[in-house]
Amino acid sequence: MLNKKIVLLVFLITTLFSTIGYAQMTNSNLSLMPYPKSIQVTNSKFRLTENFSLQYILQGERLYKMSNRFLNRLAKRTGLFLKFPFANQLDKTQKPEMFIKVERIGNVKLGEDESYRLSITKDDIGIDAKTDIGVLRGLETLLQLLKADEKGYYFPVVEIEDSPRFPWRGLLIDVCRHFMPVEVIKRNIDGMAAVKMNVLHWHLSEDQGFRVESKIFPKLTELGSDGLFYTQEQIKEIIQYADDRGIRVVPEFDVPGHATAILTAYPELASAPGLYKIERNWGIFDPTLNPIIDETYEFLDKLFKEMSGLFPDEYFHIGVDENNGKQWDANKEIQKFMKDNDLADNHALQGYFNNRVLKILTKYNKKMIGWDEIFHPSMPTSIVIQSWIGKESLVDAAQKGYQVILSNGYYIDLIQPTDFHYLNDPLPMDINLSENQKKFILGVEATMWAEMISPETIDSRIWPITAAIAERLWSPQDINNVEEMYKRLETVSFELEEHGLTHIKNKGMMLRRLTNNNETNSLETLASVIEPVKIYKRNSLRKQTQQTPLTRVVDVATADAKAAREFRNLVDSFLADDKLDLRKYSQIAEQLLSWKVNYEKLEKVIAKSPILFEIRPMSENLKNISVIGLQLLNVQIGKNKLTKDLILKSNEIISLAKEPVAQTELMIVSAIEKLFKSISE
Amino acid sequence: MLNKKIVLLVFLITTLFSTIGYAQMTNSNLSLMPYPKSIQVTNSKFRLTENFSLQYILQGERLYKMSNRFLNRLAKRTGLFLKFPFANQLDKTQKPEMFIKVERIGNVKLGEDESYRLSITKDDIGIDAKTDIGVLRGLETLLQLLKADEKGYYFPVVEIEDSPRFPWRGLLIDVCRHFMPVEVIKRNIDGMAAVKMNVLHWHLSEDQGFRVESKIFPKLTELGSDGLFYTQEQIKEIIQYADDRGIRVVPEFDVPGHATAILTAYPELASAPGLYKIERNWGIFDPTLNPIIDETYEFLDKLFKEMSGLFPDEYFHIGVDENNGKQWDANKEIQKFMKDNDLADNHALQGYFNNRVLKILTKYNKKMIGWDEIFHPSMPTSIVIQSWIGKESLVDAAQKGYQVILSNGYYIDLIQPTDFHYLNDPLPMDINLSENQKKFILGVEATMWAEMISPETIDSRIWPITAAIAERLWSPQDINNVEEMYKRLETVSFELEEHGLTHIKNKGMMLRRLTNNNETNSLETLASVIEPVKIYKRNSLRKQTQQTPLTRVVDVATADAKAAREFRNLVDSFLADDKLDLRKYSQIAEQLLSWKVNYEKLEKVIAKSPILFEIRPMSENLKNISVIGLQLLNVQIGKNKLTKDLILKSNEIISLAKEPVAQTELMIVSAIEKLFKSISE
Repeated sequence: MLNKKIVLLVFLITTLFSTIGYAQMTNSNLSLMPYPKSIQVTNSKFRLTENFSLQYILQGERLYKMSNRFLNRLAKRTGLFLKFPFANQLDKTQKPEMFIKVERIGNVKLGEDESYRLSITKDDIGIDAKTDIGVLRGLETLLQLLKADEKGYYFPVVEIEDSPRFPWRGLLIDVCRHFMPVEVIKRNIDGMAAVKMNVLHWHLSEDQGFRVESKIFPKLTELGSDGLFYTQEQIKEIIQYADDRGIRVVPEFDVPGHATAILTAYPELASAPGLYKIERNWGIFDPTLNPIIDETYEFLDKLFKEMSGLFPDEYFHIGVDENNGKQWDANKEIQKFMKDNDLADNHALQGYFNNRVLKILTKYNKKMIGWDEIFHPSMPTSIVIQSWIGKESLVDAAQKGYQVILSNGYYIDLIQPTDFHYLNDPLPMDINLSENQKKFILGVEATMWAEMISPETIDSRIWPITAAIAERLWSPQDINNVEEMYKRLETVSFELEEHGLTHIKNKGMMLRRLTNNNETNSLETLASVIEPVKIYKRNSLRKQTQQTPLTRVVDVATADAKAAREFRNLVDSFLADDKLDLRKYSQIAEQLLSWKVNYEKLEKVIAKSPILFEIRPMSENLKNISVIGLQLLNVQIGKNKLTKDLILKSNEIISLAKEPVAQTELMIVSAIEKLFKSISE
Repeated sequence: MLNKKIVLLVFLITTLFSTIGYAQMTNSNLSLMPYPKSIQVTNSKFRLTENFSLQYILQGERLYKMSNRFLNRLAKRTGLFLKFPFANQLDKTQKPEMFIKVERIGNVKLGEDESYRLSITKDDIGIDAKTDIGVLRGLETLLQLLKADEKGYYFPVVEIEDSPRFPWRGLLIDVCRHFMPVEVIKRNIDGMAAVKMNVLHWHLSEDQGFRVESKIFPKLTELGSDGLFYTQEQIKEIIQYADDRGIRVVPEFDVPGHATAILTAYPELASAPGLYKIERNWGIFDPTLNPIIDETYEFLDKLFKEMSGLFPDEYFHIGVDENNGKQWDANKEIQKFMKDNDLADNHALQGYFNNRVLKILTKYNKKMIGWDEIFHPSMPTSIVIQSWIGKESLVDAAQKGYQVILSNGYYIDLIQPTDFHYLNDPLPMDINLSENQKKFILGVEATMWAEMISPETIDSRIWPITAAIAERLWSPQDINNVEEMYKRLETVSFELEEHGLTHIKNKGMMLRRLTNNNETNSLETLASVIEPVKIYKRNSLRKQTQQTPLTRVVDVATADAKAAREFRNLVDSFLADDKLDLRKYSQIAEQLLSWKVNYEKLEKVIAKSPILFEIRPMSENLKNISVIGLQLLNVQIGKNKLTKDLILKSNEIISLAKEPVAQTELMIVSAIEKLFKSISE
């Protein structure tokens, strides 16, 4: 799923703002995310002390583990030496401070009840839920409620009723383009649980690697993985880890295209003769399974049987995307087969393939999922379609009676701003679906494709952005104020660190490496106003492969460059004022001045670290545009004249600063341009 | 191995400085650590470009993997898009820029040849070694040589001949007191390899947990591990990971004492009746295996047979330390058995036990290791003694013909300064051993006991201190200049981050958590002048258990508080000057002033974060002692008078500041005290 219809994304950006309805205010003093369905807050407090104790009645491994994890996290945050560090340590005569009531042990499957009621009084805390999975969700809310004052830690007295808007709230992690070790997956599962996501879509097979040990087909990893794969033990370990956190694991084995790694091991299954090698580049490639030979289906039958046993979830993803059809077109036997079987085109042949695979999966009690391309009139509505192409495709599928998962607009590898994803409602007010058809929209998956990420950087691409997406999927539709979201997101992002997530701390490490352990502030200043180029531009600016390093400035830059966003907001607000606000004026001027003087500081660092040479023009751009910005600002307040020369120079510098440098772009240019236009127009 | 003879440690501190011989200068411009045996440097340079290529001839999985890891690390540091990211990609007609010559595949076992020759010319790089393990050591040296100038990256033209001083260079990691997940072990193995350590001593069984899956005795982890243990698959994975890096893995199963976790699963093997529970506290405990029943030996035979199969190293550690003998004294049958068998005391009974276990291990082709207490005249010299008690014990054992590993003076859990360990030579000039007896000293193990560490903090206790210990063990004895070591250590510490080690980056994370995501500079300033209390004082100041959080200020503080060390050096140098150095005066004054004003900034942060309340008195101490320091400094230069009041106040504040606060101590007090004494005496 690499090359997406950019047009549609742009279309989305321009339309979604019109499709959001009324907005509900959130209490940004409580950094809850996803925000609960219903909350009542009072000014009273439940005081947390070392005497805190937790009990539950329903037995079960999941509840036992989660309660102790909860107590452990509480102790780590507060430093309290809890007298009862394990749940259920009190005898029956004592009353616990916190009590959990559950009706039954939940099943980690689609549609399971995740609702909970959280009731905090001055004296005790209660969580009530149908299932232990609901308790999990409630415990995360409780941890987000922890506050402090001059007397110590406390929970505000609240009454919360909560349940999710969509049952399928997923994150796809591609471990094929770049492999991600077990601990990366685990800490991201923790992050998902913290924001109440419930599906890990694990993209395990690709042109660039096959990542699961098969005991029946060991060559898949021997030849198709560079030794980078999960053993079956590790797969089980991760599934158990996810299950403990109420998260389903849906595997994806991409066929019949995206199959170079499989064909490296088993070239006899290809639609064209020849030897295959693990693909090192990014894009759409030719190697495709041969859909007309029985060997292909015998292979898939054995492999999917083995994998069905390994992955307990009832859903099983077979990809089916981006088969470019070149090998099929060039293969005479395939062409003859199509004629003989009245298969009009490649899409029909793919439909034939899908139907045969469907039979296999059905035999192993799996429900089949595929990307948009899986749709063909011959396919039964029992399959699930995952839509990357766009809302029309989604609407179309739902109208035809297929269950759908939406991913269009949630491609977090494309480095778009958080609010873009946040405001992308899966079911906008004006969607052309009946109430009944709307139920076919199971939910959403954010997709973390791995062309441009490594284990060092993946967390900074997933977090905190995915927390905002999680809110879109869990919380009521009318929770959609962007500024409030950003405010809460900052706290949530910080809290996510407790799971070992590296989205914040690896930035410092990368800056140290980039500067060769030199002064990092000046580089950080630059990094805080640039972002990686968006959509699929990065690879087109400089061809990368699986082996090129992901340790450059573009890799430390992230979406939502904070200093730049705040500066743009400041300039907008400055320009919107009817009369001159001198406070805002000086804020802008100070900021521009600090960027201007950053240049010389950074130059000293760059001179000593060749990996930074490429970023020099960007540092110059920041200086130049800051200088121009200061001059324009002075025009604005009448201190300076708008000369022809200044206009010329502004145009020149703004247009230069718009150009990407080292695969990054400067995110304050639009603000300076606005300043310029406000004067010159 | 918790409570050590502190007296001996103090003895060590006072004597070792007199036993170090002459010193050789190191080239601190090259941050090599361990420093090589022989090095010749010129001013020429080998330029690193994207055309860099690497070939080797000898086949073998280890060489293949290490070459590609090397290229990958080179690319990550430099950002270069290498045209040949895999070794051996050139055809035979092309000449590679780097060539590796190896005679044979090495065995990861004691005494294997680790020597190498590294030869860099303007045009090419060569590594020559007897074994691929020697190549591993050479590649680490090469990576440490990477430098940069205004033209790009280069390696200096050098000629290095290198081999280790001791064959056993180990790090003990205790995973029982606190469990350490697989990735913690892996990244520390990488760190060990980076500084040429070659033994991971894995402390796997303790009162507080049994950490390895046994398929024969599953109850060991079911009841004795809280679910925190390594599966056999994971053990194999880690052993392979270590083997890839030329590192041996020696397991330790501590018996007959330190056995509470084993007895929790199998109480019938105890020397006293009763039910046992996993120990949550720190110290020496009573539960001990029953040495007079056959069941004990049958259990150990089966368990050790299974574990011998799992751990391929020829050495096997059985602990044998700190059996307090209480259960034996109280057991009448044991007392009778001792009488019947002429076993004079508990030590003799332990000798009997050891001899029976030795027979078991010999059957499985293992060489037995134990701590000092394993020694008994009845033990053959085929066993290896690991000495925690002290140098006399070491000398004594070597004189008797036992092979010895030294750990006394290398207890890195005790938070002593790096130079203390660095200057602790295992074979000081004046040691009372013949040349032949010296050969019995196999080497050293640094010990990372885990009472006071978590997966979050362990790296900051091991690194960079262990790099300095590694130098003591690999490099010539006369490489021992402390200031040069500290200078090189700083670079090495930074480079260690590339393995995912968290010793630097977790500090920021912990400061954010401590401040509740508030301003962290003021807390960092405080943290940079305090250290955790030393030796075993921490637990005596405030009783901790396995469940108490390790997230407080004491946990973010580390040995060798840098700002404090630099300040002490500065004051020493200021006071040593014959005439007043005004530059030094102002440096000291500025530093004291900045600590003084830190108080108010930090107070604002503390007020919002109850976990910091306990550190308030320390912040006050820092302010007060800085104020006094400024006044004393002005007396020193004649600006101020030494009044009676000032003397009184100085005494009071200095003595108060010496008191530990929140289990930490202020590391600049001695400097202020010197300042005071220099005036008042």
